[in-house]
Amino acid sequence: MIGYTGRPMRAAHYQLLATAQRAASDGASAVAARRGRLHLTHGTVETPAFMPVGTAGTVKSLSPVDLQDAGAQMVLANTYHLWVRPGHEIIQRLGGLHRFMDWEGPILTDSGGYQVFSLKDMRKVSEQGVRFRSPLDGEWRMLTPEVAVEIQEALGVDVAMAFDECIEWPADRDRVIASTERTTRWLRRCLEARQKSDRTALFGIVQGGFHQDLRIAHAQELAGMDLDGYAIGGLSVGEPREELFTTVAYTAPHLPADKVRYLMGVGYPHDLVDGVLAGVDLFDCVLPTRSARFGSAFTSAGRITIKHGRYRDDPRPLDESCACYTCARFSRAYLRHLFTSNEILAPRLLTLHNVTFYQRLMGRLRAAVEEGPDALLRLRSLAVGWMRPLGQDGPPTDSEP
Amino acid sequence: MIGYTGRPMRAAHYQLLATAQRAASDGASAVAARRGRLHLTHGTVETPAFMPVGTAGTVKSLSPVDLQDAGAQMVLANTYHLWVRPGHEIIQRLGGLHRFMDWEGPILTDSGGYQVFSLKDMRKVSEQGVRFRSPLDGEWRMLTPEVAVEIQEALGVDVAMAFDECIEWPADRDRVIASTERTTRWLRRCLEARQKSDRTALFGIVQGGFHQDLRIAHAQELAGMDLDGYAIGGLSVGEPREELFTTVAYTAPHLPADKVRYLMGVGYPHDLVDGVLAGVDLFDCVLPTRSARFGSAFTSAGRITIKHGRYRDDPRPLDESCACYTCARFSRAYLRHLFTSNEILAPRLLTLHNVTFYQRLMGRLRAAVEEGPDALLRLRSLAVGWMRPLGQDGPPTDSEP
Repeated sequence: MIGYTGRPMRAAHYQLLATAQRAASDGASAVAARRGRLHLTHGTVETPAFMPVGTAGTVKSLSPVDLQDAGAQMVLANTYHLWVRPGHEIIQRLGGLHRFMDWEGPILTDSGGYQVFSLKDMRKVSEQGVRFRSPLDGEWRMLTPEVAVEIQEALGVDVAMAFDECIEWPADRDRVIASTERTTRWLRRCLEARQKSDRTALFGIVQGGFHQDLRIAHAQELAGMDLDGYAIGGLSVGEPREELFTTVAYTAPHLPADKVRYLMGVGYPHDLVDGVLAGVDLFDCVLPTRSARFGSAFTSAGRITIKHGRYRDDPRPLDESCACYTCARFSRAYLRHLFTSNEILAPRLLTLHNVTFYQRLMGRLRAAVEEGPDALLRLRSLAVGWMRPLGQDGPPTDSEP
Repeated sequence: MIGYTGRPMRAAHYQLLATAQRAASDGASAVAARRGRLHLTHGTVETPAFMPVGTAGTVKSLSPVDLQDAGAQMVLANTYHLWVRPGHEIIQRLGGLHRFMDWEGPILTDSGGYQVFSLKDMRKVSEQGVRFRSPLDGEWRMLTPEVAVEIQEALGVDVAMAFDECIEWPADRDRVIASTERTTRWLRRCLEARQKSDRTALFGIVQGGFHQDLRIAHAQELAGMDLDGYAIGGLSVGEPREELFTTVAYTAPHLPADKVRYLMGVGYPHDLVDGVLAGVDLFDCVLPTRSARFGSAFTSAGRITIKHGRYRDDPRPLDESCACYTCARFSRAYLRHLFTSNEILAPRLLTLHNVTFYQRLMGRLRAAVEEGPDALLRLRSLAVGWMRPLGQDGPPTDSEP
């Protein structure tokens, strides 16, 4: 890729298109939302954007065509899982992850850090990296910053995440300081290990626990490193919901305005709205896909637990304002029947709907940023309403997500 | 529906278009194949045809759009399963089975006889019908010819199957005689119970075990009843393969030439060829769908067990001569990865391929009947070759199914 000046361009370029801003006032939270465009090797992503999770190189139950139909622009896959099975060398020999899973749009991989740290009794952390025993084959493996970069570049993804240290919540201040410093050292090793920086962007991850000064200091340190993009990590680890968004809100302003901001592993629809309000551009979460497999659907009239007996005779679609294939063709009664019969079509149809619902929300968020703070705050009220079980407290006034 | 003469037409009309015939000679089996068209309430089926099995109102893992893409014309569903869950009244209230499962083409339901007879310790057979205990809810229910017809008409299917008695194999002559006579009495009760004979056809089932004289006598008796269509039942119950096709071959000539002939529960690709050679028009079987879920694919180069390590690096599609979505977009290596990772997309992609493979075979069989006996016998040799595991005994010379 060649940039405007004729010099090799970096693999990620964020273009800020619009902002919606308002200071906090009595009872109303601040608005610092961004509308942008993220240019990557395999295409351009309109932001704010949500990435469905395709851990093992497949967004569970959906084909790539389904993902396109749902409006997904970019997907997330998992370095650790693909390394352990089938192995990045195999995927590389077969032409890379895009060709392997037949997804032509951008792909981001998380670095595997979160996964190896969750193997509590089967890993040993050192300055070098994390030695762990794979639950799949019982083999000991060593994940280091260099290995994480090597795997992600071999997969040929658009965005590689830096290998960072994940710590538990709560953690005391000294532990957070030590861990954040290690994350920075590992980030530098990631940067040095890159061989394909023109094709695979590298995003750094801001840590610092839930200590405002540490978060800000780390954000500023990473901002000084002129990275391709910035994730806010170490969140959604068990802390109260308010703590998460407070942290994002005081961290984001210290990240460069001309780089993309990614909030990892978040969240429910109203969490996405809050993330956008705080200045986040990119999200991923298993919620729409995982909850679909458990029979839970997000709709503009509230959440549906499809196995509930009340849907036995219900001829209506999951969401009367949704145009996805599931809502266009199937009744709640049929979906309930598929679920109670353990039919494999059930998770597929609900996943398609939930992913579509999330993508429509993102489209609406993008429009709301352009419209201004009031539109965003109205969307926030709506999204809070979508959290309640369908049929409780009467129908919401505005039903279109 | 109004017939040519202005009188109400029956719900099934079979139109014979061509035959391929040749007497048996040294070492070569007889050819008595038919090419036809079956006109039903929800459309016309080009025969010979194969119906994918959608027991609970879903061909497992496939959407109705997938089924259309695979070339399926007609599907089979199960009276017993839909009666027990979700209940035919619910489906009727929701507009019938076609609308419930969003399948606009013809549907045939089996009567439930086979299912209740397989509930060995939980059923009691009398002249009235079969009393059984549902494994789903523990309730005792009574399935009779009248109930079977009522359920199938409530579902609104194109073809209802008569409720017949299924007996074990082997069974002695006296038991076969008594059971076949009961099947005939039950058939008469089915005919009398019909309320919607203008929309839902009723097919009778020829029994008679593996006794040639009993089979022929029963075929002749049913032929005299001028039914909408004829199934050959009580086969594929454990008997040797040769016995099955010998029985079909001596039974079919005694069925009316102007009515459709349906061989229930058969089979592998070469079984379908043998059925067509013996004069069968319609088939159903769980093989393409069930084996897909177990990771087994039918291809024009032999059968593939996708989990096999030999496919770890294999960039080729399942079947290089297949144009289905699975073969167009995904490698054996990716499909193997999905299976070894227990990914829900795996059975879906293999099912789509297998159903496509079966439908292409039926298309080729229809063309072969028009071409003549030699074309059919060549197709038979090919289909026998498809049974061997891929990679054994060298590549076949003609690889297109």
